[in-house]
Order: sequence, then structure tokens, then C-alpha cells
Amino acid sequence: MKRLEEEKVFKDPVHKYIYVQDPLIWDLINTREFQRLRRIRQLGTSYLTFHGAEHSRFSHSLGVYEITRRIISQFERNGYTDWPAEERLVCLSAALLHDLGHGPFSHSIEPVMRMNHEQWSCRLILGDTEVNRVLREVSDDFPERVAAVIAKTYEPEIAVSLISSQLDADRMDYLLRDAYFTGVNYGTFDLDRILRLMRPHRGRIVIKSSGMHAVEDYLMSRYQMYIQVYFHPVTRSSEIVLQKIVRRAVQLMRDGYAFRFLLPPLPQWLQGTLTEAEYLRLDESFLQTAIAEWCGEPDPVLSDLCRRFLHRRLFQYVPLRPDEEPDWDKLRRLCREAGLDPAYYLEADTLYAVPYEAYRPGERNRRLPIFLLDQGGGLTEISECSAVVRSLCTAPIELKHLYYPADRIALA
Amino acid sequence: MKRLEEEKVFKDPVHKYIYVQDPLIWDLINTREFQRLRRIRQLGTSYLTFHGAEHSRFSHSLGVYEITRRIISQFERNGYTDWPAEERLVCLSAALLHDLGHGPFSHSIEPVMRMNHEQWSCRLILGDTEVNRVLREVSDDFPERVAAVIAKTYEPEIAVSLISSQLDADRMDYLLRDAYFTGVNYGTFDLDRILRLMRPHRGRIVIKSSGMHAVEDYLMSRYQMYIQVYFHPVTRSSEIVLQKIVRRAVQLMRDGYAFRFLLPPLPQWLQGTLTEAEYLRLDESFLQTAIAEWCGEPDPVLSDLCRRFLHRRLFQYVPLRPDEEPDWDKLRRLCREAGLDPAYYLEADTLYAVPYEAYRPGERNRRLPIFLLDQGGGLTEISECSAVVRSLCTAPIELKHLYYPADRIALA
Amino acid sequence: MKRLEEEKVFKDPVHKYIYVQDPLIWDLINTREFQRLRRIRQLGTSYLTFHGAEHSRFSHSLGVYEITRRIISQFERNGYTDWPAEERLVCLSAALLHDLGHGPFSHSIEPVMRMNHEQWSCRLILGDTEVNRVLREVSDDFPERVAAVIAKTYEPEIAVSLISSQLDADRMDYLLRDAYFTGVNYGTFDLDRILRLMRPHRGRIVIKSSGMHAVEDYLMSRYQMYIQVYFHPVTRSSEIVLQKIVRRAVQLMRDGYAFRFLLPPLPQWLQGTLTEAEYLRLDESFLQTAIAEWCGEPDPVLSDLCRRFLHRRLFQYVPLRPDEEPDWDKLRRLCREAGLDPAYYLEADTLYAVPYEAYRPGERNRRLPIFLLDQGGGLTEISECSAVVRSLCTAPIELKHLYYPADRIALA
Amino acid sequence: MKRLEEEKVFKDPVHKYIYVQDPLIWDLINTREFQRLRRIRQLGTSYLTFHGAEHSRFSHSLGVYEITRRIISQFERNGYTDWPAEERLVCLSAALLHDLGHGPFSHSIEPVMRMNHEQWSCRLILGDTEVNRVLREVSDDFPERVAAVIAKTYEPEIAVSLISSQLDADRMDYLLRDAYFTGVNYGTFDLDRILRLMRPHRGRIVIKSSGMHAVEDYLMSRYQMYIQVYFHPVTRSSEIVLQKIVRRAVQLMRDGYAFRFLLPPLPQWLQGTLTEAEYLRLDESFLQTAIAEWCGEPDPVLSDLCRRFLHRRLFQYVPLRPDEEPDWDKLRRLCREAGLDPAYYLEADTLYAVPYEAYRPGERNRRLPIFLLDQGGGLTEISECSAVVRSLCTAPIELKHLYYPADRIALA
Repeated sequence: MKRLEEEKVFKDPVHKYIYVQDPLIWDLINTREFQRLRRIRQLGTSYLTFHGAEHSRFSHSLGVYEITRRIISQFERNGYTDWPAEERLVCLSAALLHDLGHGPFSHSIEPVMRMNHEQWSCRLILGDTEVNRVLREVSDDFPERVAAVIAKTYEPEIAVSLISSQLDADRMDYLLRDAYFTGVNYGTFDLDRILRLMRPHRGRIVIKSSGMHAVEDYLMSRYQMYIQVYFHPVTRSSEIVLQKIVRRAVQLMRDGYAFRFLLPPLPQWLQGTLTEAEYLRLDESFLQTAIAEWCGEPDPVLSDLCRRFLHRRLFQYVPLRPDEEPDWDKLRRLCREAGLDPAYYLEADTLYAVPYEAYRPGERNRRLPIFLLDQGGGLTEISECSAVVRSLCTAPIELKHLYYPADRIALA
Repeated sequence: MKRLEEEKVFKDPVHKYIYVQDPLIWDLINTREFQRLRRIRQLGTSYLTFHGAEHSRFSHSLGVYEITRRIISQFERNGYTDWPAEERLVCLSAALLHDLGHGPFSHSIEPVMRMNHEQWSCRLILGDTEVNRVLREVSDDFPERVAAVIAKTYEPEIAVSLISSQLDADRMDYLLRDAYFTGVNYGTFDLDRILRLMRPHRGRIVIKSSGMHAVEDYLMSRYQMYIQVYFHPVTRSSEIVLQKIVRRAVQLMRDGYAFRFLLPPLPQWLQGTLTEAEYLRLDESFLQTAIAEWCGEPDPVLSDLCRRFLHRRLFQYVPLRPDEEPDWDKLRRLCREAGLDPAYYLEADTLYAVPYEAYRPGERNRRLPIFLLDQGGGLTEISECSAVVRSLCTAPIELKHLYYPADRIALA
Repeated sequence: MKRLEEEKVFKDPVHKYIYVQDPLIWDLINTREFQRLRRIRQLGTSYLTFHGAEHSRFSHSLGVYEITRRIISQFERNGYTDWPAEERLVCLSAALLHDLGHGPFSHSIEPVMRMNHEQWSCRLILGDTEVNRVLREVSDDFPERVAAVIAKTYEPEIAVSLISSQLDADRMDYLLRDAYFTGVNYGTFDLDRILRLMRPHRGRIVIKSSGMHAVEDYLMSRYQMYIQVYFHPVTRSSEIVLQKIVRRAVQLMRDGYAFRFLLPPLPQWLQGTLTEAEYLRLDESFLQTAIAEWCGEPDPVLSDLCRRFLHRRLFQYVPLRPDEEPDWDKLRRLCREAGLDPAYYLEADTLYAVPYEAYRPGERNRRLPIFLLDQGGGLTEISECSAVVRSLCTAPIELKHLYYPADRIALA
Repeated sequence: MKRLEEEKVFKDPVHKYIYVQDPLIWDLINTREFQRLRRIRQLGTSYLTFHGAEHSRFSHSLGVYEITRRIISQFERNGYTDWPAEERLVCLSAALLHDLGHGPFSHSIEPVMRMNHEQWSCRLILGDTEVNRVLREVSDDFPERVAAVIAKTYEPEIAVSLISSQLDADRMDYLLRDAYFTGVNYGTFDLDRILRLMRPHRGRIVIKSSGMHAVEDYLMSRYQMYIQVYFHPVTRSSEIVLQKIVRRAVQLMRDGYAFRFLLPPLPQWLQGTLTEAEYLRLDESFLQTAIAEWCGEPDPVLSDLCRRFLHRRLFQYVPLRPDEEPDWDKLRRLCREAGLDPAYYLEADTLYAVPYEAYRPGERNRRLPIFLLDQGGGLTEISECSAVVRSLCTAPIELKHLYYPADRIALA
């Protein structure tokens, strides 16, 4: 593939500049499907807690591409023989496109709608789209190859691990980016050092053992971001209100309710029959407009929940111990006395995360563990050397809260 | 007024934390009109040039409030007698609410629609709104007082100058904030030093003369931000496409065209008859949804322009000298040959700004000049001492470009 | 005490500005003893590893003062009744002066010379010094009170804990400052949040429990700084060379060796009989000059070690397991074969630190543990709630290295 | 030349990491002459005003090397034919060594001692030094070539202009570095953008015209750093005291005064007969020690001035207009009445700088102007396009102050 005559840059607050050298990458960025990612926020409803968190999947996708570009460029500059040089473009494309299938507030809504953004990414890459046409100019099987990297079925696996492992370009970008835009400074770590100490090694990406503490710091940042940002109970409250809205709308659709506002592709979405073209029409502007319109629906549950979301009148929360169950009988009674349906106004919610999953022999790991490469060429899984990392494996984050409308129900 | 029992904070990337101590401010932030500012971007279409620039008027409004709070707190701590202590709450409220009337992409659209966001801010403050109800709890005339500060008719004028002069909380916040979110570092200046050297002095806010160079640096940041960000030709191109969309829609409305998508308050907006309630329904999600829907309108001009905006297929630009006129006859001929209406596909656009306006005796100044206070109590207008500031007064920024669709018209 | 008519500021890279409001503090800063701290580096020989680490005890001392000032100012602003307001000046003075007794490269040299900088701080505060005269203007017993805070014998103990506990102004400043000047970014944590959540509570400084994760992050920063900076083996190598120099000079002094360069107070220092006036003469310029002069001493051990230090020809290191002993017989033989005295050219060095010490009932704790204050007023020691903190208590940092001159001895 | 097997890095707060790939550069850094630069501060006595400004010439020299390395690497990556690739090593060496000849507080003392650090740099490169031996391993004439670049006599001139022009690696590093360590944020500019837009063009380094505003911003940073930092009157006061000390010592030497402390190479230095070996012995530790010792000299002028410097009892200053002369008769009388010699206790000092010198035809320029390269290949000197830059050329910085000991003389 040829290089661009003059390299193009994007100004980026996290990486200073993002450099584009390949016409392929430039063309992918300019497709309408990739431009649509400007209308999907990176952190869903987190902007209701951290007002700076308005950044888009578009900026994150460019960031993942840029980190991947830097890693590969380092591998090439040093001529590491374990790096399959011919995988460069497929890796860069997959890095750029890995989030292509994200829908509006997808992390919040996916559990309700049983959609999966990675499947959608692949459908959009393989379907009748501008992205597909651009990729096919490389070769007929290039879209399939890019989709396989995203689906984690690609061989050689090293290409997958650049974008999707426990120390990958995706996670490194979103930690730095989410920290920057929320304004919390927990997400920072020494990206330059980690990139410099990455090595391709027998089909894996590993880290020189002198980088162990930099990786510890990265994992601790991840832990802190989970607790401070991703699992923030106010954000969670807004996600629950949003889920309830979607649940209610799906139910009303099933019941044949006559929506005042039901612009396509809302019916298809609520019925789970979206085509790719319809899916692309779904962005956060559209969903936010639907929510605003539904504030005027006659159905009292739908309209009330939508007003709560729009005007940020979220549910209140009280912490629960992991094994604690609230007094459901009393809660449901209070709810009904207030004229509210408990199915839409009460939720006991558990959030659970393991900031790092060590390798356990005999188990099939969901995520590739992080290996350290010592001078003799030996590999050690990081939690074997680091007590700090072990503490992250053995004490998962587990938060449980009860959410309810404090303006309608008094809990004590 | 009472203080909050425990002060509330917002995490903010620019000011680290924003502190709320007054129940009044807390209640204003929680009104639906103020929450709506989350759905209006601070920099309009600039996100199409700088992908980080997704930040909202909500975050900027909190920032202006915070800077105002710090200035007043410094005045109170030092017990400056020229500061009218009883104006604290009206200043804080006006700082918070000064942008309440901003509509979607208002800086781009206002010239076409003859709307004015400051007038709308006052209408919303004085009308039947939650904001008005919260303000009236202070006193019956409190909404009028806040509106007067925003309209710059308030007495004492010193309250106005905190929020609206050439060195005010509004400008200081947006320079820092826009620099942060775009990622350019030109907008930085020493906010702490300027705040520390501000003094209330005989009805004016002035700066101790030892702060002259810090003010120079602030004015140079302003100059750089105009050139690098606010007047960026790619952003301007997107604004022009947006203006053309609105112009076309207004024309079609007048012509009785049967829009496929014309949800209220679109008709009222295009006809210029919006009520406050209708105005509040206008946010950027709504307008972006309208543009997405209009991509499917039968009118070829409207649908083409909307697709250009949505998928970022903007107009190309060529620079012109300030006094240069393009060859209109040839351009219009080329345009028509391509089947395009020149009224919607050509624009010669001039941008003009004076980063700082010195005081000229005999003229009525639009903007209050910046005065330096020397140790003897004398005042000097800053451009009299600083050659750098003089260069900003005497050489205004003037940029002229021709915009046209390069995919349809070849200019040579 | 009166306040300064106009508050004074110091520009500081870590805290932006350091504010001085009390004439007492201003006068203390201007004493010759405090000015001497400009000639003592904060991080000793670390500049030989991290070239930015040239910052002085002077800047750190101002930083500790500033953090203490902010904490107290927050306590006063909120009117917390558990804060003894009359202790303000003694705390500020002790914060400023706590490192007054540091000598050149004191952390490296103290173990050899059996000096103790805290004892010297007290001697200088109580002796015939400018600092003592300034303090005595407050009251006759004021120097004793300040010294008692530094010696940790002061009552009420809350004054001590501000400056000397496991979450004190001293540690918070040096982590941020050392991170800034070395350029590593591990030392950052959310200072503003921790300060905001500090509370005086029944004679202790505690943290609101909502600040638990911010404290975790602070403790992890501390852990990372130990590993990456404070215990860096290159720095340690330079410290060992320096210790060997001092040991050799002490030995030569005892042996009646005729030094070519032995300016006072070198003899007194090497004999351990320094008066306060002599001690004040010791700064890093002086010691560095002595080392440069000693490069020309006839004693081959002293001159060689001094050249190694001056020209940064340090000892090489090889890591050892904590329980591993090198083959001393072989090493000493190799050393002697190279014509070197093993006592000055070999060292097996162990570094040990516990980033956080939890409270163990029945033990007398060296350091006050960190307590979290829940809403009901209950206190919990932080390691009881946090697995991450527990990992820091239970897995101390322990590093062992062998140091030797690789230019003279080949280890295989 | 071969590359290092594994590239070496230095952690640097300004550039994050400094990369060394050539054994030559690595060996030069490890010479004793280059290590000596650790003992020379970058900003002389500025640490007495900005306590963070303790950074050394060592760190600045590495920074200039790193910027030069990045520029050349960009030129090579893009294969610009106007770049003479064979000059890489000579440029990198000259960048690293350009300040090798700096003595203690050289900017302050040079005017008094008529020394010139650039001449000394060349003497040390060409003389009997480790640096010379390392350079000669490249080729016999390599030391001469490196010295010629530093002396600005090298051909091709483009090699000189990388390190020494009005937009060179030297200035770009020191602005960023001095801003970082003092903590002022005026010195920041977009280094990455300037480096990306630099082009070798017909024997010159020029900037693509799209970088004009980034260069404006760089020049404004330079202007602000002059005013806020380099010309700070407190720093200037310390420089004047230092100059008086040196003048007095030179005079006493001439007069045959019997110094109590006069360690070599002090006599040679005061008499201006230093050899290279003696020169290398001069560092700031040594001079600071001499000043501390001279506090005990019987000569009252020398000892008083030395105490003033050591304990920071500097001269007071009053601003003068550029054309204003103080009332010398009165001042000298007051001085003598206080028992002080006016030659050592009074100074009317003028500081003058032009932040940017435009090209004036017919004049021989001291500094190469900055040219912008337009798309057609034309060159324009930047002050022709930029009013802001013109204001910097036409309004030079000129500051005049009277310095005097306010503790002895009352000026009314």
C-alpha cells in the first residue's frame, strides 16, 4: 500500500497529535459509518455525573488506532522478528473500527436489548457499507480479516492481542481519555514506557520485566477508574432509568400501544429486527430526541421516566452489602402506595469487576493474562511477582445499591 | 441567604473542582432549563474540526460561575471597600445563567435566524420557568436584577463587568476550557495571578499594574484561539453548510413545501414565532435529528446539504485577500452547469475580530477597556503601556475565504 | 498576630503559588538558616539518576508549609470544633522548619555519621540562631513548642499529626514534588480531594470514608515512588559510593592522615563534634567541593572513590534475592586481586520499606495509621476496608543488590 | 556509525524521555566534562527568585540534543532532499556539547570576567579532554567540525541553524525547560507542531507558512519569559551582587591582598590565566564555597557582599525610565555617609532585548531571521506577515533599575 503524500494529523488532547499515513486509514475515517461515531458518547450517560465526559467514540477510536500505530512502528523500527510485518494494515484497520457497531448508550442498553456492539461492528464491516467498500479495495478478503480480528478469531492471535487483551490499545486509550475528559487524574500511567517495553514474543505481546511496576500502575489506574468513574452510583442511576425507559417502550410496543412518536427505526429497534441501514440511523441524538418526545406520551410510566432522564431527576440510591437483600415486601408496598409500578421504579443492582484476571491453569481464560519477559527469555504471569496485582485479582470490585425515586418514596 | 450545610462540588477538568455553597445556586443548577445546557455544545460545530470539542454550555456555565465565585471570595477576604458586598448573589446567578438562552449551534445560526441568545436568556429568566421560580424565592425583583446584569443595564455597573467586559469570567473560562477540550495549548494563561491582581476600584474591575504582562498573555491567548480554533476554516465551512440548511428550510416553509419531517417546534422555529416552552424544546439532539431526517426529503437542495453536514462532506475553501472578490460570473456559471443553485452552494465569507478594543475618546465603546492600577491609584488603559497589546488593537484579524463544493465544481 | 498588609506569594511549580500571610512566616523564610536549605537537595544524589531532581529542601519546606496552611484554612472556614484554633502558628512554623536540620546528602550519610536531621532541626530552633530569635518574638516558649511538634512530643497530638503521620503535609508535598521534578508521573494523586475530606476528629486528623479510594491512590503513589525513584539502584549505588567516601575519611582522620584539603568544619564533622555554627556551614556545595578536592589526595582509596562520585563512575549492581548471600570469599578474592580493599569496594545492600503500616493492637506503632470517618461518626483503619491497602501492608518492598566496581572486577 | 544494541533513555520532565541511539552520544554524555554540567545551573542565580529553577545545564544540553534528534529524524523519515544526511552526527554532537564551556553563573559573570562560554566550549572540544578523545574516534577532524558548528563557522550553514538561529533547538528547549522548572506557564508553545512543519530548504531551516501562528506563539513565549523570568529584577539584583563580589576579588588580587581562602584555581581565575584543566575545576559548588569562605575575609567589602549573596540579603531596586539618570551626587553622598564605597554598592542597570530580530537589508544580521515557506516555494520573513511579530521587533524590552542596599541607605 502506498503512503499519503503528506501525512495528515488530528489534534488530540490525549496523544497531542494522531498521525495518518495510509490512504486506507484516511478513507475509513471519512466513511459515513465512522463519522457516525461522533454521535455516540464514549462513556454513555457518565456526562450526567462528570460534565466533561462528553467525548465520543470517534475520538476514542482514533486514539486506539494511534496507540496501535505507535506499537507497530516501534516493532518495525527495532526489527523484531517475532512481529508479522504483513499484519500491519489489518491491525490498524481493526483498531480504528473495533467500536464501529456501538449504538446509543450501548453499555447501558445492551443488557436490555440483547444487542452486542462487537457483532454489529462485524455486520457493518461485512455488510453493504462505505467501510466495506473501502476495505475491499485492499483485497476481497480484507473485510473478513478485519472482522476476524475484532471477533477475536483471527490468526495469528498476536494481531488480536494488540487490540484486545488485558493490556491493549483499547484499554490504554480509554483509561487515559476518560481520565482526561472527566478530569479525574487516577487514569494516568506511563504510556510511553509501556509502549517502549512491549515486545512481540512467540505469538504474544509481552512486557519486559523491567516494566512490571509501570504495568502495576496501569492496572491500579484501571481499578481506580472503575470505582471512581465507571461504577459511579449516579451514573448507574441514570443507566437504570434509561433501561427502564427501554423496557417500558418494548413492553408498550408488544402491547400494541399507540405511540405518539414512533419514527423509524424505533419500531424495528423495539422489536429487535433492525437492518444495518436502520441500525446506522440510531445515534444518541436520535435516542435523546425520542426520549424528549416521549415526555409527552400518555403512558404515565414512559413519560415520567423520560422526564426523569431528560431533566436529570434520577433515582436515589442506598448502598447494600453484597449479600444483603432489601425488604422487598415493604418496598413494593411503598411503591404501590405511591401509585408506582415496582417493576419500573425499584432496582437492586450489583456491579462486579475484576480489574485483572490472572491465568488459572485448567480454566479457559476470557482475557489473555499479562506476561513479563525476563532477560533470559522466560515468561512470568504478572500476578505471580506482584502482591499489588494479586490484591486486584483476589478482591474483585463488588458494589450493590438499591435505586428508587426518593421524591415519591420515603425510605425511613 | 443561608449556606448549604455541606458544600457541594463538581469535578471539572479546568478548575479541578467547582464549589457550590449557596442553596440558590444548587437549585438553579437543578432546573430543567439549566440542565438543557448539557445538550448544547459550547463550540457549536467545532467538533467537526477538533474532535475533543464536544464540551457543553453546561460545563462552561459552571466554569464562569466558579471564576466569579473566586473573584468575589478574594474581594471579600481582603475586605476591599469598593466592592458592593450585597451584589454577591446576583453576580453568581448571572454568571451561572448568562448563557441560558443559547440554542442549538447558536453562533452559527443566529445570523440567519435573527435570534439573540442574550435576549432569550432574559426571556427564560423572566418567563414561566423553573429558573424564574427559584430566583423569585430570593425576592420578587431578583429575576429582573439577574436579567439586567445579563442585559448589561444593571447598576452598579461593576456587577456587569465581572461577567461581561474584556477581562471577565466568561472569557477567562471559555479560553481555558476550549483550549483544554480541543487540545491546543494556546489558550492557557495564568488565571490565578490575574484573579489575585484584580481589584474593585471606583465602580470598575481593574488590574494591579504588576499584572500587565499576565494580561498581555491572556490577550495573546485570545488572539491565538481566534485564529487557531474559533476562525478555523473547516469549522467555518460546517457553519456555512448549516446556515444554508436553515436558509433553505425557511424558504421551503415560506413556499408551502410539504416537509416529510416537521415535528414541532420546527414550524414555529422556521417561522420565527417560538414561545419560551417551544424554545426550550430546541436542543442540538433535536436539530441533529431533524437534519438526519431531512436527508430523506424530496427537495434536492435540503437533502443534499443535510447529508453534507451529517456525513461531514463539507465545502472546500480557498483563501482570498480581504479586498479580493472572486470571479462571481464564472463561479455561478460553473455552479449552474453542475446543476446547483449558487445561492446555496457558494459563499464568500469574511471573519473579522479585534482581540482587544482600546478605549477611543469620543467613541461609545462596545466593550469596557482594561485598566491598570498603579501604586499611586492612577489608572492607565493597557494599550497605552503595551506595544504587544497595541499590535492586537491595530491589526485586527480578518480572514476571507470562498467556500464551494469541490466534489461538484472544479475551480481550475 | 497581625497579618501582612499584602499577602506575599512564591511561584511554585507544584502548588502554583505559595501564600504567606503572617509576618512570622515571612521572617522565618528570610533567616540565614532557612535560606541555607536552598543548598541542600531534596533527593540527595537522585539527580545522578533523574537529572531533573535538583530541587532543594527549601522548595519542599515551603510546600509542606503551604499544604498545612490549606488544611488549617479549611478547618477554620468550616468552623470544625475539634480543631484547636490556637495551634495555627505553631503548626505553620513547624511545617516550615521541620527539615531545617538536614545536612548535605543527609539520607545517604546519616547512617554512617549517626547524625539525625530531626535532632539538628530542634538544636537549630532552640540554639543561638536567627530562626530562634524570630520565633521568640511570638513568646518565650514558642521555640520549644515548635521543636516539640517536630520531635513529635507536642500536646495536643493533632498538631503533630498534621506534619508527621502516614497522611501528612510532609509526605503529600514530597510525593507530588519529587514526581514533578524527576518527571515520573507515578507520584500524582488528588491532593484537593484529600484536603477537602480531612477532618479534625477527637484529637486526630481523619478522612471522610468517601475519600477512601483517593487515599488508596495516594498510598499506591507512595509505593510506586519508592520503587521507581527512592530505591532506584543507580541512586543507591551513588549513595554507597558516598558512604564509602565518608567512612574512608573518618578512618583517615582517626589514623592521623594528613589531608591536603581539610577546611573547617571538615575535621569537626569527621570527628562528630560539630557545633551549631559549624553545622550550618555544611551544605552540599561545601561537601561537593571537598569531594572534588579529595580527588587529588594521595590516599588511593579516598581519591578513587571521590573521582567515581564526581564523574559518575558508580558501582555496578546485580540483584540478589532477599535471602541470598553472594559468594563473599570469591568476591573478596577478586577484589584483592584487583588491588582493592573489599571494605570500600563491595557492598550487599538491602532496602526495605512498608508503604503503609496498619495498626496492630498490642504493638506500639511508629506511625499513626489512617482512619476513615463514616457518617455515623465511627472510625475504621483503612486497611480493614481496602484489599489494595492490605497488599501494601503485607508485602513490604524489599530489594537486595550487590554493588561492585565493574571496571575493575569481572563477575563472570 | 553503529547504533546501540538497545536504545538508552533518560527520564526527562520536559520531553518525557530522551532517546540515545548512537554509541558516540552515549560516550560523550559519560565524559567528565559533560558530567560537570550537572554542577552548573541553567538559569544562574534565578533560583533566588524562582525556587524551582535549580535545573542544570546537563539537563538542558540533553534537551537540545533530543530536539535536534527529533528534527533530523523527521527530515530523514520524509526523505527531504535538501537535508545533508551526512551531517547527522556532527549536528547531534554539537547540540549536546554547545554549552560545554559554561562556567559557574556564567551569564552573570561573563561581562565582568570577559570570558566567553562558546570559546570555552570550543577549547574543551579541541583540547586534551575526554570529550576530544571520544570525538576523535569518529575521525581526526571530527572535533574541529563539531567546534565549527558551535562557533557558527561550519559549512553547510544549515547544520549551524539547527542549533543556533532564532528558532533553534537551543531556544526551544530552554523556553520549555525554564518554564517547567520555574513553574510559570508562559514559556509553553506547540513544539510538536513546529517540529512537524520545519523543512530544510536550500541551505536553510524554514517553517511551512501554515505554522506562522505557532511561531508567533513561540516568539510571544520568548518575550514573556524575558520579562517574567530572565529580566526579573530580583534575579538581576543577585547578579549585580555577584558581579560586585567578582570585581572586588579581582581588585584585591591585583592589590596583592592576602586572601584567607584562595584555593586554586581561584588565583588563575581572578588573573584570567586559566588552563582548560583549571577551568574544568570551576563549577557552582566551588564558587559557592568560595563565597561562603569569603564571608570571613577581613576585607569588609568582600565579606559583606558575600554574606549578602549567601543569605539572600540582596540590593533593593527602584525602576527608572530608560532615559532617566538617578541623582548620582546625592546617591554617592548617601553611600559614603553610610560608610560604603559607591563603586560596590550602587548600580544603574539597563536590560535590553529584542525578542525577535527581523531581517533588515543592508545590515549584517546577528541572528538568522525566520522564514515561512509558502506552497509555491516562496519565502517570506515572518515579521512581514505578522503584526504581532512586528510589535516584538519594533518595541524592544528595555528595563532600567537602580540597585542599592536599602538596609544601609534610605532613599526617602
